[in-house]
Amino acid sequence: MRKFVPHHRKASDRPRRIPGVYVIVLGIDPGVANTGYGVVALDRGRLVALDGGVVETAAGLHAGARLARIHERVGDLLDGYHPDAVAVEDLYFGTNARSAFAVGQARGVVVLAAGQRGIRCASYTPQQVKAAVCGSGRAEKDQVQRMVQTLLALPDLPRPDHAADALAVAICHANGAPLAAAVSA
Amino acid sequence: MRKFVPHHRKASDRPRRIPGVYVIVLGIDPGVANTGYGVVALDRGRLVALDGGVVETAAGLHAGARLARIHERVGDLLDGYHPDAVAVEDLYFGTNARSAFAVGQARGVVVLAAGQRGIRCASYTPQQVKAAVCGSGRAEKDQVQRMVQTLLALPDLPRPDHAADALAVAICHANGAPLAAAVSA
Repeated sequence: MRKFVPHHRKASDRPRRIPGVYVIVLGIDPGVANTGYGVVALDRGRLVALDGGVVETAAGLHAGARLARIHERVGDLLDGYHPDAVAVEDLYFGTNARSAFAVGQARGVVVLAAGQRGIRCASYTPQQVKAAVCGSGRAEKDQVQRMVQTLLALPDLPRPDHAADALAVAICHANGAPLAAAVSA
Repeated sequence: MRKFVPHHRKASDRPRRIPGVYVIVLGIDPGVANTGYGVVALDRGRLVALDGGVVETAAGLHAGARLARIHERVGDLLDGYHPDAVAVEDLYFGTNARSAFAVGQARGVVVLAAGQRGIRCASYTPQQVKAAVCGSGRAEKDQVQRMVQTLLALPDLPRPDHAADALAVAICHANGAPLAAAVSA
């Protein structure tokens, strides 16, 4: 697993959590070969990256073993960070059926891992994520990466791409749904 | 779960298994709302249905809970029947990306359940299943059901549809791959 740890805090180090004040979101960009993940905390309006990386599975493994690896790692992240929410990147408009089928399988085991812990997943299209992070649904990939870097105050551009995408979907959710939920609670 | 039990034998009742002589295949027709399953034994060239039915999940449940139900039931079938092989229906050519994405998620948790037990899944398109069962990839649904009934010597047409489709994919695999494997072993 490739991993970048911008401001790493172990789960045990994190502050006591006050609902709606300190919110942790796990963002996932699912894929059979590469599943990006990003853990973002929203601390009184300020976004902080807690973790990010990619779960890679070898092409030589059979599909069941690859999916088992993704399911296990996402389970570890859920058990380690106890996120308040999980946000998963949805299908890119224009994806063909064959690749939608493949991505669906990776997404299925991510949503399962959350469901087995009683957590629902929120879903955002790539266009929604770009709009939330960059202000435009048509932003280019490098614009998204620069905005993720800026919003999370990272010293470098977030890499690999799938980790950056996962952080972006986590930011998209952190800046929207949980605040609305906190207001309505 | 809707279930039909044509010649039900509990896992504990089944004969001692001689590889290549008594082969059990679990067939799955995955779907988020309805996942069909069929358990077929090939006993010295004769096909017998051991179990069949549909795992239904309520539309009111969130996706993670629905996938958890499918994953759990398929796990129970794997642990109950210890199939030698799992055969899963592949994508129908012409499926759109959105439904391929949904079916992929259900398929992902099925392949995961098998992978967690070290079992690989074989994959057959609907056309391959029809060709194996009816001799033509263009056979109609009711033709497939009648052939499944005949091949398994069932007293009635197998129902619901998803259970019949799952039995058909199990027959497709039982009549092909395991025999070839037994010959080459």
